[in-house]
Amino acid sequence: MLEDKNPSRTPLSNLGEFGLIDHLTKGLPKRVPTTLFGVGDDAAVIDSGEDFILTSTDMLVENVHFDLTYVPLKHLGYKSVVVNLSDIYAMGGRPEQILVSMALSNRFTVEAVDEIYKGIYLACEQYGVDLVGGDTTSSNQGLVLSITAIGRTKKDKVIYRSGAKPTDLIVVTGDLGGAYMGLQILEREKSVYMGNPEMQPELQGHEYVLERQLKPEARKDVVEMFEGLEIHPTSMIDISDGLSSEVLHLTRSSKTGSVIYEDRIPIDPTVFRLCEEFNLNTTTVALNGGEDYELLFTLPVSDHEKIKGNPNLTVIGHVTEEDRGNYLITRDGVAVELTARGWNPLGEEND
Amino acid sequence: MLEDKNPSRTPLSNLGEFGLIDHLTKGLPKRVPTTLFGVGDDAAVIDSGEDFILTSTDMLVENVHFDLTYVPLKHLGYKSVVVNLSDIYAMGGRPEQILVSMALSNRFTVEAVDEIYKGIYLACEQYGVDLVGGDTTSSNQGLVLSITAIGRTKKDKVIYRSGAKPTDLIVVTGDLGGAYMGLQILEREKSVYMGNPEMQPELQGHEYVLERQLKPEARKDVVEMFEGLEIHPTSMIDISDGLSSEVLHLTRSSKTGSVIYEDRIPIDPTVFRLCEEFNLNTTTVALNGGEDYELLFTLPVSDHEKIKGNPNLTVIGHVTEEDRGNYLITRDGVAVELTARGWNPLGEEND
Repeated sequence: MLEDKNPSRTPLSNLGEFGLIDHLTKGLPKRVPTTLFGVGDDAAVIDSGEDFILTSTDMLVENVHFDLTYVPLKHLGYKSVVVNLSDIYAMGGRPEQILVSMALSNRFTVEAVDEIYKGIYLACEQYGVDLVGGDTTSSNQGLVLSITAIGRTKKDKVIYRSGAKPTDLIVVTGDLGGAYMGLQILEREKSVYMGNPEMQPELQGHEYVLERQLKPEARKDVVEMFEGLEIHPTSMIDISDGLSSEVLHLTRSSKTGSVIYEDRIPIDPTVFRLCEEFNLNTTTVALNGGEDYELLFTLPVSDHEKIKGNPNLTVIGHVTEEDRGNYLITRDGVAVELTARGWNPLGEEND
Repeated sequence: MLEDKNPSRTPLSNLGEFGLIDHLTKGLPKRVPTTLFGVGDDAAVIDSGEDFILTSTDMLVENVHFDLTYVPLKHLGYKSVVVNLSDIYAMGGRPEQILVSMALSNRFTVEAVDEIYKGIYLACEQYGVDLVGGDTTSSNQGLVLSITAIGRTKKDKVIYRSGAKPTDLIVVTGDLGGAYMGLQILEREKSVYMGNPEMQPELQGHEYVLERQLKPEARKDVVEMFEGLEIHPTSMIDISDGLSSEVLHLTRSSKTGSVIYEDRIPIDPTVFRLCEEFNLNTTTVALNGGEDYELLFTLPVSDHEKIKGNPNLTVIGHVTEEDRGNYLITRDGVAVELTARGWNPLGEEND
């Protein structure tokens, strides 16, 4: 009925997720004085008078972002909240409210929806946030979850991606690569199960990485940690797509370069062991794996003493001038240019 | 792989959309002092210090909420923003920011996404709001749009659903039933087209109802109108699901009853004509049609003089004590109990 008057047909995969977002939002006007920062950081920043209101949203689609063959519904609800809260923490804020929208096909029962909400409410409890709204509707196929988080920060405590300065230290919280290895185990057990549904999945001994994948936590401790240590990061981002991609986002926003050291990247021993078993390179897994929801931030080198020896924080490199590019220094001392290989949800694999 | 440990299987259609929301959100705790009002009104209300922040979200699913056979992508983008802004106006607020998330299958091209965004940006321009964030990802099938609107109101200007008092006048803006009749025409032309794709759709002469369906507007004029008329509604709701359903929402929240008069319901002459052509009852269309995005509000009877003769506002009835129930008085003077027959997006029709 509707004529296609536009003969050009560019596939979305030509641009990829970040390319498409850039394409759609370049030159976006700001009409409202309370809009302080829009697209291009972990959360938008709105002036509420006394404080800044932070807001961020994520959409999770069945069989794109999660596979209900092995993701328990309660974990799905929990994780979908946590990944949004992570964006608020990544701005130096505290989340306060969430809105949850859900489209469900009729294969979901009331009991199934209850399970998802059990996870959502558990996350609300753990992180001290209120569910204040949403929308529930039907879909023709599968489950789509869309969550918006709203948070708040004192005006002088907000941390953008764009404040990194050359010589600043690059720091990560926790360790990386665990969530990706958890996914590898789940995918392996799924293959076994698909071959023989009588087989029980072998998940024992892999609790750490499975929890990293299925029930990740956001770093709600950092805002208080920063206050306790009396440090104020110059820039910050959460690690949802893999370290490499996030370092590039941060340095692009800050108009800087970076050097990170392979031997400094914090990796849990179980991840080392599993990478060996799966014949994967640990560094590649940490750089590109994603979904760890740790935080990456930069700090003036003068603050080094304040974080030295802190078991939650690892200095992995430093910020350089923009024209120096972004490099990983390998264990052999070779400089390899960092490329964004993060997971691409607009890739070719979906039709 | 995941065992279903819960043998009870209640279909979602047993509860319906509002039943499910009630089921999921009953006894919801409020942990955060800034959360003033959560689920159960057009928008959540958050205390931002000086003002109230209002926020509301909607999810639109292809072939559930819209049919791309006849909905132009640009109109879809426009409408999906407008329906969210309507929720902010319905609280007496002014929208300021939106977040837009979208899941797209690979049948959508960059050019198609551009069209959707043209509509989104046109709505932003018309209503003076900023797009400040969102998420773009792939889906295995079809298009899902999720939009969150954020607005603001002075603390003494917020209007809840719950403030109606017996004897208050019940008032609607604009006229009702047009959007539903626009949908009937589009569905009829689609049937013709499906039977013979060579046929051109006959849409001429139906501009008013087609625009009501395809490019509805939110009542951004009311906040200023209320200020100009020096009135402050005791309660308000937007008419998205049909007058009947919204009257019942409002009186349930206000713990009141209501009487509305069939002959007072404002209906455009083109809607009368079309109802005749389609052999539909005009009142049923106005009561149950939905998607008009007009506002329904209540006002102390002492304010009657202030709105009398206003072409934008029609008094359709009055609020009664709760035990009197909710009734429509027909043209013949018969009292018929109002029932919620609004469109049910969790009905049986989807699998």
